[in-house]
Amino acid sequence: MRKLLVIGTIAACAALAVAPMYADEGMWMLHQLGELDQAKLKAMGITLTPTELWDLKTNTGLASAIPSLGGCSASFVSAEGLIVTNHHCAFGAIQQNSTPEKDYITKGFLAKTKAEELPARGSRVYVFKGYEDITTAVRSALKPSMKPEERGKALETREKELVAACEKDGLRCRVASMYNGYKYYMFKQQELRDVRLVYAPPRSIGEYGGETDNWMWPRHTGDWSYLRAYVGADGKPADFNAANVPFKPERFLKVATVPVKEGDFTMIMGYPGRTMRYRLAASLQDDLEFNYPQRVKTSKETVAILEEHGRTGKDVEIKLASRVKGIYNGLKKSEGMLEGLTKSDLIETKRAEEAKLAAWIAADPARKAKYGAAIATLERLQAERRATRERDMVFGSIGQSSSLLGAASTAVRWAEERAKPSDLDREMGFQARDERQLRQRFSLTQRNLDLPTDKDLFAYALRRAAALPAGQRIAPVDAALAGTGKTGDDAIKALIEKLYGTTTLADEKSRTAMLDEDLATLQARKDPFVDLALALRKESKKIEEADKRSEGEAIVANPLYMEALLAARGGALYPDANGTLRFTYATVKGYSPRDGVYNKPFTTLAGVAAKHTGKGEFNCPPSLLEAAKKGPYERYTDPRLGDVPSCFLSTNDITGGNSGSPIMNGKGELIGLAFDGNYEWLTSDYEFSDDLSRTINVSSIYMLWVMDHLDKAHNLLREMGIEPLAK
Amino acid sequence: MRKLLVIGTIAACAALAVAPMYADEGMWMLHQLGELDQAKLKAMGITLTPTELWDLKTNTGLASAIPSLGGCSASFVSAEGLIVTNHHCAFGAIQQNSTPEKDYITKGFLAKTKAEELPARGSRVYVFKGYEDITTAVRSALKPSMKPEERGKALETREKELVAACEKDGLRCRVASMYNGYKYYMFKQQELRDVRLVYAPPRSIGEYGGETDNWMWPRHTGDWSYLRAYVGADGKPADFNAANVPFKPERFLKVATVPVKEGDFTMIMGYPGRTMRYRLAASLQDDLEFNYPQRVKTSKETVAILEEHGRTGKDVEIKLASRVKGIYNGLKKSEGMLEGLTKSDLIETKRAEEAKLAAWIAADPARKAKYGAAIATLERLQAERRATRERDMVFGSIGQSSSLLGAASTAVRWAEERAKPSDLDREMGFQARDERQLRQRFSLTQRNLDLPTDKDLFAYALRRAAALPAGQRIAPVDAALAGTGKTGDDAIKALIEKLYGTTTLADEKSRTAMLDEDLATLQARKDPFVDLALALRKESKKIEEADKRSEGEAIVANPLYMEALLAARGGALYPDANGTLRFTYATVKGYSPRDGVYNKPFTTLAGVAAKHTGKGEFNCPPSLLEAAKKGPYERYTDPRLGDVPSCFLSTNDITGGNSGSPIMNGKGELIGLAFDGNYEWLTSDYEFSDDLSRTINVSSIYMLWVMDHLDKAHNLLREMGIEPLAK
Repeated sequence: MRKLLVIGTIAACAALAVAPMYADEGMWMLHQLGELDQAKLKAMGITLTPTELWDLKTNTGLASAIPSLGGCSASFVSAEGLIVTNHHCAFGAIQQNSTPEKDYITKGFLAKTKAEELPARGSRVYVFKGYEDITTAVRSALKPSMKPEERGKALETREKELVAACEKDGLRCRVASMYNGYKYYMFKQQELRDVRLVYAPPRSIGEYGGETDNWMWPRHTGDWSYLRAYVGADGKPADFNAANVPFKPERFLKVATVPVKEGDFTMIMGYPGRTMRYRLAASLQDDLEFNYPQRVKTSKETVAILEEHGRTGKDVEIKLASRVKGIYNGLKKSEGMLEGLTKSDLIETKRAEEAKLAAWIAADPARKAKYGAAIATLERLQAERRATRERDMVFGSIGQSSSLLGAASTAVRWAEERAKPSDLDREMGFQARDERQLRQRFSLTQRNLDLPTDKDLFAYALRRAAALPAGQRIAPVDAALAGTGKTGDDAIKALIEKLYGTTTLADEKSRTAMLDEDLATLQARKDPFVDLALALRKESKKIEEADKRSEGEAIVANPLYMEALLAARGGALYPDANGTLRFTYATVKGYSPRDGVYNKPFTTLAGVAAKHTGKGEFNCPPSLLEAAKKGPYERYTDPRLGDVPSCFLSTNDITGGNSGSPIMNGKGELIGLAFDGNYEWLTSDYEFSDDLSRTINVSSIYMLWVMDHLDKAHNLLREMGIEPLAK
Repeated sequence: MRKLLVIGTIAACAALAVAPMYADEGMWMLHQLGELDQAKLKAMGITLTPTELWDLKTNTGLASAIPSLGGCSASFVSAEGLIVTNHHCAFGAIQQNSTPEKDYITKGFLAKTKAEELPARGSRVYVFKGYEDITTAVRSALKPSMKPEERGKALETREKELVAACEKDGLRCRVASMYNGYKYYMFKQQELRDVRLVYAPPRSIGEYGGETDNWMWPRHTGDWSYLRAYVGADGKPADFNAANVPFKPERFLKVATVPVKEGDFTMIMGYPGRTMRYRLAASLQDDLEFNYPQRVKTSKETVAILEEHGRTGKDVEIKLASRVKGIYNGLKKSEGMLEGLTKSDLIETKRAEEAKLAAWIAADPARKAKYGAAIATLERLQAERRATRERDMVFGSIGQSSSLLGAASTAVRWAEERAKPSDLDREMGFQARDERQLRQRFSLTQRNLDLPTDKDLFAYALRRAAALPAGQRIAPVDAALAGTGKTGDDAIKALIEKLYGTTTLADEKSRTAMLDEDLATLQARKDPFVDLALALRKESKKIEEADKRSEGEAIVANPLYMEALLAARGGALYPDANGTLRFTYATVKGYSPRDGVYNKPFTTLAGVAAKHTGKGEFNCPPSLLEAAKKGPYERYTDPRLGDVPSCFLSTNDITGGNSGSPIMNGKGELIGLAFDGNYEWLTSDYEFSDDLSRTINVSSIYMLWVMDHLDKAHNLLREMGIEPLAK
């Protein structure tokens, strides 16, 4: 079912790449660094060599200092495991430690000593440990004799075997498919499980500008927070324990105290989540016509429900805060995507490029024989997917609508997978290695559960299901509604009353107990949510079964398509982002968002104060307003700006997942944190634009100034080797 | 009553000027040109001498080419009386010739020959004929023995005598008080009464961006239209007559075909309406706290009423269009003023400057004796005005609310003034010289009259009057409402039914007849609107009587204050704008509207097309969209921009009334038309900002390109000496 939650799927969609015509395009894998134009990089300002960034032979280098947080990126900034990332990446950790009385979200938090640091339960730090090419090992699992429907399973089994072998060393391993399955790599990470909240500025700095400024320039958000990774006294990863000791990273970044200027070299390492630079025009067309418009609609309707409930009380508001934030983020992104795709001629460009590639293939009998059918196959698969897109979208959202149904579905799946003969047979995400996180997530659910909200979200999902066209109905939902003996909204109301009235899943103990029950025991509960989850699982199996054939066809067509593309293009080509560590180099640079306007590359402290309205998202701390009137602030005041820099723009090529990534100067010093892209950049997931795609970074100078003069995080400054200036 | 219609009054408010610290500040009178730094002007790029712009001895010069349209500015651009001004200045002329069938507002209009030109009834062209200093003649009317309440009348009588003497030559004369009565000048104009509509682009070009873009940058409005002035065969001003001949201006402007660039010299001559650069801080405070907030509120409520009615039919919409446009314009301006005043520290600055001037005065016994009491007196008068501000605002708006009541009030006043022994005794605006325009206005009322709208606007005014606090009630309105025997909204409803049910003023003939009736005859009509107008006039006389004393005090205090200020400052100081011809010099220049953003000085044709949404205010003609994809367009394409320039910014110091002003290069060629200021510029009526105050001009190049390639106004291009390029 996971597959249906995302728009299109990487596995099934491949398209013609846009060549990296511009200097700054490209999310490069570390082994590609040596293939780039070294003279040009040096001229731009880098002083580190590719092997200093990452040495593939020794598995050491600057990249050791750049862990993933699972969805976000970060950097180590001290020998004691101190980590800096975005405020919005640490938001969950701040939220779970906040109560209406101790409101760290609003007021910020600073541990003056290590003892005051707060556990960030559920948080993980994944330290980069290198990767290797396993293409042959993976692809040899595919036999020419296999039927399409057998291929997916064969690949999956092989990947699991390889992961299991890799994890023998105690590392966490992941197979990453690059170029849509043309290449496979095994990525290794050390998973640190004791993560603590060290420092977060008040929301009025860390989230300054809020949803209004999200994806926008000019920007003035102080989007940073600090965590610390701990390990057992033996130096090995361990669960939270007061006796644990700070993790000693192999490398950590020096934080720059000298401001950068326009035109300076910048590089970012981080974990971009997903780009779609090699997709077919037909797939883009579906995004433009269906997926984004639908997303916009459902996001708006969902957030309206959440906000209505949030107004009923501060505690409810805190429970829903993270979710509301996430939806707004996604909504604005979908809207920007829609706007960008509508305005651009990207689809036409892609079509033209596809035609060109087809001509290149057709021009040579050998190429024709090898690659000839790939485009047609992929287009056919896209058309097949289109036939059930309404159902797929609703089906994917039902399990997410109610936390109780979500928990039941997870328990059902967990029981199903555990019943399998060996761990290798189990679906990823439901293997033995996933148990700890699963249990923790179950326990955390309680914290954010608000039953009235849960009911309304579920009702909304049911209404969507009830509105599906004939031929795309979801049978278990239809059956459940029919079972009430009523129709329309009455049936939905009755079903919800029945489910929430008799379920025991709202009780944490009862819910958690499900994780130890097998399918028969779950069934015997006669819990209506579990029953619905069982029925939905039966349905999703049917869908998965049907999908296997098309998946198998794509498994062959996609790599062929990419191979043809690589051959036709020649030269280095970076793969799409997929959550693995990447490198992007660029410069500090403004842009023209529209005719008659130029967005300058820097904002300033004065600009922070100028946006202050005293209300909502623009409500600076009084100390900041006071301080903004004073100055200069010695090393923090950039003489070129005559002020403390706040945020800056760079031409780095990033995407979601890069949040919290260090942006570095040519010496590898942290000059800021990437935390957003501009509105015009949104469509860069499809195509990077040298004119319009910009990374928005918060300056290290602003961060250090706030830590020094406002938040008095002098202990942390000293830990990073920076002597505070404020008294 | 007129006095109450404007915010504060110039006569009663004077304050400390902000010295023209910046090169580009200043709306200079023409005789001051010689006092400016000629070397600097030359270095900036002017090649004309002050006397070429205007020779005070011979009363000739470039200014002859720049007539006033009464509220707007314009230029002659051919020897045949062809005039170019803003589209929004010619809007009334376009509107009165438009019908749902011949919708020139939407489709534009082009007279291919002079015979096709359409009469613009009510339009006037006032040709500049020079001015002279009459300070001694005016101020000698004031005798030391006079009581304050006698001074206003004495000044008025003297001014009328001087105007009457001046108009003996057949010119139109006006006494303009400068520096709040410290100086007086007699301005002479030739009034041309036969004005015709020659060419207007479609609204989708001429109003492109509409209210959304109003006061905004980047801007892409093609805000131009062409008129032509006619005179009798004898060359003298005459009413419309098909036999009339084109007016031959003494001078006309050459339209530049070479684009300007950033940093180029620019100058504007035109008729800025009103600035308040010398007002007291106390007066500004009242604007900020009361006047603008009230204006915003009533504008919003009024426009809501108009728009609701506009939706009832295309004919109603056309009738109300001009009014809606005007209110939106004022609303956005009031909002910008409020925002600007709230953000700036202008009031504090003014207070500090007032204190400084007070100290300068106090430092010398002779100065103290002469100027000592002026500031205190002016502040006291301001405080007195504050006590009745709610009533004054509502009283001023009642007569404007209903067109029928407005007509009745005018007729009553006209009868009252005509009964006076001599023309000189009559109030300005109600003298013999005003009769023609008054009659024309009465006749035009019919064209824009929509009774349901009129009723609702009147009801709105009555509700506001009913809500006035005790001590500020308007007795005649209270009496009329009480006369219905009802209370609250019922009384308002009943009064409106009575008034509209029995009046004959909706009939054009009956209404126009009033202008020939004396007060007794009007009274004998027993028309309820006339009765109300009579009662309101009685009330306003009471108010005027009470105002005479404070007016008399201001007449003495204001000039003393300004005299002190001029002496304290030294050097050339320009007077506030008051609708007389002024000169402002500057450069083409962008600005930073906020931290992190720079507004570039030019927009382009590509930018026009990029704003196109196909809806509402952003709906380009298809021909424009097509053409924008092509090019380059020979002389119209600026190689620096790689495109046809659309609009541009300059640092000229202008205000409302400058609309339609020619912006010229150093040679006096028309390089565009000023049509707006930026949002940040709005508060420049109080204080000019070199950083933020910008004039928005439409480029002559864009105008010529549209005339050449889209609207095919080749006859006009040739008349202006420009050979068209399009086939």
